[in-house]
Amino acid sequence: MKKINIGIVGSAGYTGGELIRLLINHPAAHIAFAHSQSQAGKYVYQVHTDLLGDTDLKFSAETSEDIDVLFLCVGHGNARKYLEANPVADHIRIIDLSQDFRNDPNLEFPAGGGQAGGARHFVYGLPELNREAIKTARNIANPGCFATGIQLALLPLAAAGVLNNDVHLTATTGSTGAGQAPSPTTHFSWRSNNLSVYKPFGHQHLKEITRSLNQLQPGFGSSLNLIPYRGDFSRGIIVSAYLECALDEAAARELYESYYRNHAFTHLSPVNIDLKQVVNTNKCLLYLERHGDKLMIISITDNLLKGASGQAVQNMNLLFALDEQTGLRLKPSAF
Amino acid sequence: MKKINIGIVGSAGYTGGELIRLLINHPAAHIAFAHSQSQAGKYVYQVHTDLLGDTDLKFSAETSEDIDVLFLCVGHGNARKYLEANPVADHIRIIDLSQDFRNDPNLEFPAGGGQAGGARHFVYGLPELNREAIKTARNIANPGCFATGIQLALLPLAAAGVLNNDVHLTATTGSTGAGQAPSPTTHFSWRSNNLSVYKPFGHQHLKEITRSLNQLQPGFGSSLNLIPYRGDFSRGIIVSAYLECALDEAAARELYESYYRNHAFTHLSPVNIDLKQVVNTNKCLLYLERHGDKLMIISITDNLLKGASGQAVQNMNLLFALDEQTGLRLKPSAF
Amino acid sequence: MKKINIGIVGSAGYTGGELIRLLINHPAAHIAFAHSQSQAGKYVYQVHTDLLGDTDLKFSAETSEDIDVLFLCVGHGNARKYLEANPVADHIRIIDLSQDFRNDPNLEFPAGGGQAGGARHFVYGLPELNREAIKTARNIANPGCFATGIQLALLPLAAAGVLNNDVHLTATTGSTGAGQAPSPTTHFSWRSNNLSVYKPFGHQHLKEITRSLNQLQPGFGSSLNLIPYRGDFSRGIIVSAYLECALDEAAARELYESYYRNHAFTHLSPVNIDLKQVVNTNKCLLYLERHGDKLMIISITDNLLKGASGQAVQNMNLLFALDEQTGLRLKPSAF
Amino acid sequence: MKKINIGIVGSAGYTGGELIRLLINHPAAHIAFAHSQSQAGKYVYQVHTDLLGDTDLKFSAETSEDIDVLFLCVGHGNARKYLEANPVADHIRIIDLSQDFRNDPNLEFPAGGGQAGGARHFVYGLPELNREAIKTARNIANPGCFATGIQLALLPLAAAGVLNNDVHLTATTGSTGAGQAPSPTTHFSWRSNNLSVYKPFGHQHLKEITRSLNQLQPGFGSSLNLIPYRGDFSRGIIVSAYLECALDEAAARELYESYYRNHAFTHLSPVNIDLKQVVNTNKCLLYLERHGDKLMIISITDNLLKGASGQAVQNMNLLFALDEQTGLRLKPSAF
Repeated sequence: MKKINIGIVGSAGYTGGELIRLLINHPAAHIAFAHSQSQAGKYVYQVHTDLLGDTDLKFSAETSEDIDVLFLCVGHGNARKYLEANPVADHIRIIDLSQDFRNDPNLEFPAGGGQAGGARHFVYGLPELNREAIKTARNIANPGCFATGIQLALLPLAAAGVLNNDVHLTATTGSTGAGQAPSPTTHFSWRSNNLSVYKPFGHQHLKEITRSLNQLQPGFGSSLNLIPYRGDFSRGIIVSAYLECALDEAAARELYESYYRNHAFTHLSPVNIDLKQVVNTNKCLLYLERHGDKLMIISITDNLLKGASGQAVQNMNLLFALDEQTGLRLKPSAF
Repeated sequence: MKKINIGIVGSAGYTGGELIRLLINHPAAHIAFAHSQSQAGKYVYQVHTDLLGDTDLKFSAETSEDIDVLFLCVGHGNARKYLEANPVADHIRIIDLSQDFRNDPNLEFPAGGGQAGGARHFVYGLPELNREAIKTARNIANPGCFATGIQLALLPLAAAGVLNNDVHLTATTGSTGAGQAPSPTTHFSWRSNNLSVYKPFGHQHLKEITRSLNQLQPGFGSSLNLIPYRGDFSRGIIVSAYLECALDEAAARELYESYYRNHAFTHLSPVNIDLKQVVNTNKCLLYLERHGDKLMIISITDNLLKGASGQAVQNMNLLFALDEQTGLRLKPSAF
Repeated sequence: MKKINIGIVGSAGYTGGELIRLLINHPAAHIAFAHSQSQAGKYVYQVHTDLLGDTDLKFSAETSEDIDVLFLCVGHGNARKYLEANPVADHIRIIDLSQDFRNDPNLEFPAGGGQAGGARHFVYGLPELNREAIKTARNIANPGCFATGIQLALLPLAAAGVLNNDVHLTATTGSTGAGQAPSPTTHFSWRSNNLSVYKPFGHQHLKEITRSLNQLQPGFGSSLNLIPYRGDFSRGIIVSAYLECALDEAAARELYESYYRNHAFTHLSPVNIDLKQVVNTNKCLLYLERHGDKLMIISITDNLLKGASGQAVQNMNLLFALDEQTGLRLKPSAF
Repeated sequence: MKKINIGIVGSAGYTGGELIRLLINHPAAHIAFAHSQSQAGKYVYQVHTDLLGDTDLKFSAETSEDIDVLFLCVGHGNARKYLEANPVADHIRIIDLSQDFRNDPNLEFPAGGGQAGGARHFVYGLPELNREAIKTARNIANPGCFATGIQLALLPLAAAGVLNNDVHLTATTGSTGAGQAPSPTTHFSWRSNNLSVYKPFGHQHLKEITRSLNQLQPGFGSSLNLIPYRGDFSRGIIVSAYLECALDEAAARELYESYYRNHAFTHLSPVNIDLKQVVNTNKCLLYLERHGDKLMIISITDNLLKGASGQAVQNMNLLFALDEQTGLRLKPSAF
C-alpha cells in the first residue's frame, strides 16, 4: 500500500498526540514530520509518554513540502494565522482541527515565499453530513467535539425536515476537552467528583451546528438551547437532546437507522447507553425515546476521537479514497 | 439542654447512617435506639465504619416508646407498611425519609396492640416552603433529594407567580442516591468515568415538586421536563433549570435573595457555582443568569444531607423549637 | 492470511470480553464460538455493550471441535473442572486464563465421550520468560495479572542471579481485577476515592512468581513481601519493588535493557513512569532507581491486557507462529 | 466561653482554608484576621467558595497584635522568613504548619520594629507523642501529613523499644497534599485514574519521623524505607508499614490499644480499614496483622485535617487548656 505522507503542526498538544497515536498504527500512514516549536528535538514519547516503545519519532522544528496532507492541531485562531504566514504548497491537502474554517470556510493568502497567492476552500468535515463532498475536497475543517455529538443526534431530523421546534440540549465533556494547559478548572483537587456548567446558551460550537442543520433543512430557525457541563472524567461527551416532534418512536428509530445505515461509526442502540461505551473509539452511539409529545435523543462520543483526531483521520481516509474505517477499528477501553 | 430522645428505624442504610453521623454530634440529640433487623447486636461502627472511635452505639432489634421522635429510614413503600404494622404512640413525632407520605400525606392505622386506631397527617418537610407549618407539625414527610434541589431552584418564581412556561431541567446525582444494595449501575468498573441518563421525563420526584409549585402558585400547570443523570461521584446533586420568564436578571436576583433571606441553608451565589461547594454540608447554593428570553438557575445540594438526612435533622430542629442550624454547621469537605 | 479458528469458553466475563475486543480486530483471528451459559443467544454487544456496531457475534450455548485454539475465561478452579468434564480434541490448543495450571501444569482426563483419555501439559505463558517454550507448546497457562507485573520487574535480576535478598513489593490494582460480580469492595460508593490493603503477604500469585524466579535463578529462596492494594480506578496495576542489590544503577539499566531488548511489549523507561502510560495497551513499562544499597523497580501494566487477555493473544500469536504484536498494537487511552 | 483571638497568615491556601473551615465552627475561636497578600479585600468565600453562606470574613492585608495565637499557613521556608521579618509580640503563641521548625526548633530574631530581639522554641506538635509538652508550649511546629500517618503507625513500637529492624513503608497521598498551584501532576487529565511514585527513599518528612522515634526509643537507627505515591483522590493518606518484630499479634494489639487509650483521635480497628473511613475527620485509624515474623500496620488519616489543619486546631486546644476534641468532632464524609 502506498503510504500517505503526513505532516502535523502543533503535535505536542492533546489532539496532536491523539493523532500520532492513531497514525503510527494506520496501515497507509507515514508521519513525515511532527512539528512542535516547544518540544522540537525531543522524542514524541517524552511528551506523549504513553507512546514509549511504540515509536521513535521525534518532534521537529522544521516542516517540509514533501507531504500529501497537513494536519493543523494548533489553537483556535492560530490555524488561519499559520496558513497566512506559511503558504502551503498547492499539492498538499489540509485538515484543520481548529474552529477557524468551520464557519468561515475560505482562506486567502498572499503571494510570497516563492508561492503564488491563492485561496483555499474548506469543506466541513463531518462525514455523516458531507461524505461525498469530503471525498473530493482539498481542505477540511474538522468539526468541534460538542458540535459532532450534537449534530449526530439531530441530523436525521433535519434531513427529514422535522426539526421545527426548540431543541433542549445538555452536554457534558471530559477534561481533555479543555486542553493541556493547567487552569483552575482542570486542577484535580477541584475537578474530581465535581460538575459545573459553563458557557450556557453561548457555546461557540452552536454556530457550526446551526449551519449544518440549515444545510439539511433550509430555513431551520429554532433555538438550540445548550447547557454545557464540565465532567469529572477525562474522555467523552454525552449529549441529551429533546424537542417536540410529531414522529412516533418507531418512525424516529427507522429514520435514524436509515440515515446512518451506511455510516460505519454511528449507530442507534436499541437500549439505553452510557458514556463509556464509546471511550477510546471513533464511534458515536445514539439512543432515542419518545415521551409525550417529545422525542429525546442521547448521543455519546469520545471528544478526542470522533470529536477531534479520530474524525480527522476518518476525513483523511475519505480524502485518499481509503476505507473510512482504516486505522480506526479501535479497541474500546470499556471500563 | 434537655435532650431529644430519638429512635431510628432502618439505621443500617445510607440515610440511616448519615442521620447517625449528624445526631451523635448534635448537642440536643440522644439516640435511644438505632433499629436494624439485619445488623442488630453489632456496633454501629461495624456497618458505618467511619464512626469507629466516635460512638459505641449498637444496632438494636428492639424499638421503644420512650422517645420523642422516630425517624424512618426504610425503603420507599416500607414506611407506610411499618407504621400500619407498628402503631406509634401518640406522643411520638415521626419524620419519614421515604416518599410514602409526600404526595399522600395521611396515614390511618387500625386499633390494636394496646393502641387506639387513629390517623396521622404528614407535613411536607421542606423548610424553605413550609417552615411555619413544620414548626407545629406532628409528622413530617421529608422531601426527596432531586425534589429538594429542584424546588429550591424554582420556589421563588412560583412564589412570585411567574412560573408560566415549561421548565427544562437536568439533574445529576451521586451514587449514594442509589442506596447501598449493589447493582450493575453502582459497580465501580461501570460507573467510574461514566455518565448515563435514567428515567427521563418520568422521575418519581416530579409529583412532589409539582405539588409544591402549585402550593405557591395555584394553577401552575407548565411541564417540568427532567432529564436525570447518574454521576460518577458519590455525593451531590447539581440541577440546571431554565425557562422563558419576563424577569430581568437583577429582578430575579432580588427575588431569590428576598425569598431566601431568612433561610440559613440556601443562598444565591453572585458567581457561578460547582457541585463540590456544598458536599458534606446541609446547604443549597443557587446561581442564576439570564440569556435572551430565558432565565437559567443552577442548584447544588448534597443528596444525603439537604437532600435527605440533613434536612430531616433540620426538620427535627424546627419541630422541637431549636435553632434550625443546630448540629448542622458542618465542615464542607471542599475537595 | 489463513485465519485461526477460535473458541472461547466463559466469554461473558471481563477477560472474555476483553479477548473478544482484541480478536475481532485481529487480522488472523476468527471467533468460531463465544460460549456463555448465562448469555447464550444474546448478541455479544448486549453484554459487552461497547461492542455495539463492531460485531454481530452472538453468545452460543454450544461449543465445537472445529477450532484451532480454545480460550478458557472461566473462574479459578473451573478451568480444570471444565476440561475434565469436556475432553478437548487432540488437535485443539488450549490457552487457560485461570490459575488452574500455573502451578500444577498437568491435566489428566479420563477416556469417555468418544475421546481417549490422555494428558495435557501447560507451559507457563509469560513470553518474557518462556517464549521459545511457548512457541512449541500445545497448552498455555496464562499468568496472573499481579504475577505478570511483578515478574517483569524482577526477571532480569533473577536471570543475572542477583536476586539474593528479600524483595519488598507494593502493587495496586484496578477494580476490573475483581471481576464482574458486584461485591462490597466493588461498589462505587465505597471504592471511589478509596484505597485499601487486601491479602497482605498472602496473595495467590506469589506461588507462580516464585516458580518463575527459581526457573531463572535456581535456589532462589528470598522472601517476596507483597502488599496488594485495591485502587480506585478500573484498569491497571502499578508495582513498586525494592531490594538490596549490589548492581549499580547503570549496570542495572544495562541488565534490564539487555534482557528485554527482543521483547516488543516490555520497555525500560529512562524517566519515572505513571500508571496511565500503559492503560489500554499490552505493554509493560519499567523504571528503576538506585537508593543507597537498594535497587527500586517500578512496573506498570494493564491488568486486563498484559495481565490477562492481551497476553493470552500474545501467546496465541506465538503458538501459531505469528508476529508477537499481531492484533496488539493498541492505541493507548492515555488519559 | 472566652474566645481565643486568632490570626492566620497565608489563609488563602489549602491548609489556611481548612483552618478557617474548622475555626468558624469552633466554639472558643474568634478569627481576628485572615491575612492574605494576594486576596486581601476579598471575602473568604470568594476563594474558599464552599464557605459561601457560612462566614462574612474577609481576607486582610493587615495583621494585628491583638491576638492570642498566630497560625502560619505559608509555604515551607517562608515561615521562618516571615517570623524573622515580622517579630511577633511575646504574648502571642505561634502554630506553624510549615516544616521550618520541625527539625530545627529554634528561632532567633533580632531586635527591631519596637521589639526586643529574642528567641522562640517550637515544640513538635504531635499530641500522641508530646501532649504534655504541647500543653505548656509557647510555640508549636505542626507535623507533616506523611509524618503524622507514619508516626502514628510506629510510635507504640518505639515506646516499647521494639523498633529494631528496618521498616518498609508505602504511603499514598491525595492531591490536596500537593497544594493549590497547578502543576503537571495535579492536572486532572493526568492524575485521574493514575498512580505514580515520587521521592522514593527521600521524602522530606523522614527526618521528623526519625527524630520522634529516637525520642521514644533512644538509639533507634533502623532504616525507614518509604515509597510515597501520588493518589487519584483529593483527601487522605494511607500508609502500610511492616517490619520484623518479635511481638505476637495479641501483644501488639494490646500495646497499641494501651498507647492510644487516652488519645481521642487515634484508634486501633479490630478489622481491616480503608482510606475513606477517616476522610473529613481528624482521626487516625490503625490496623495491624502479623504475618510470619513480620508485623504489618496500616494507618489512615486525612492529610488536611489530622495531617495539617485539624492537628493544628488540636494543638491550639491543648495550648489553651480546652478539651482536645473541641471543634473537631467532624462529620465524616464517609463516601
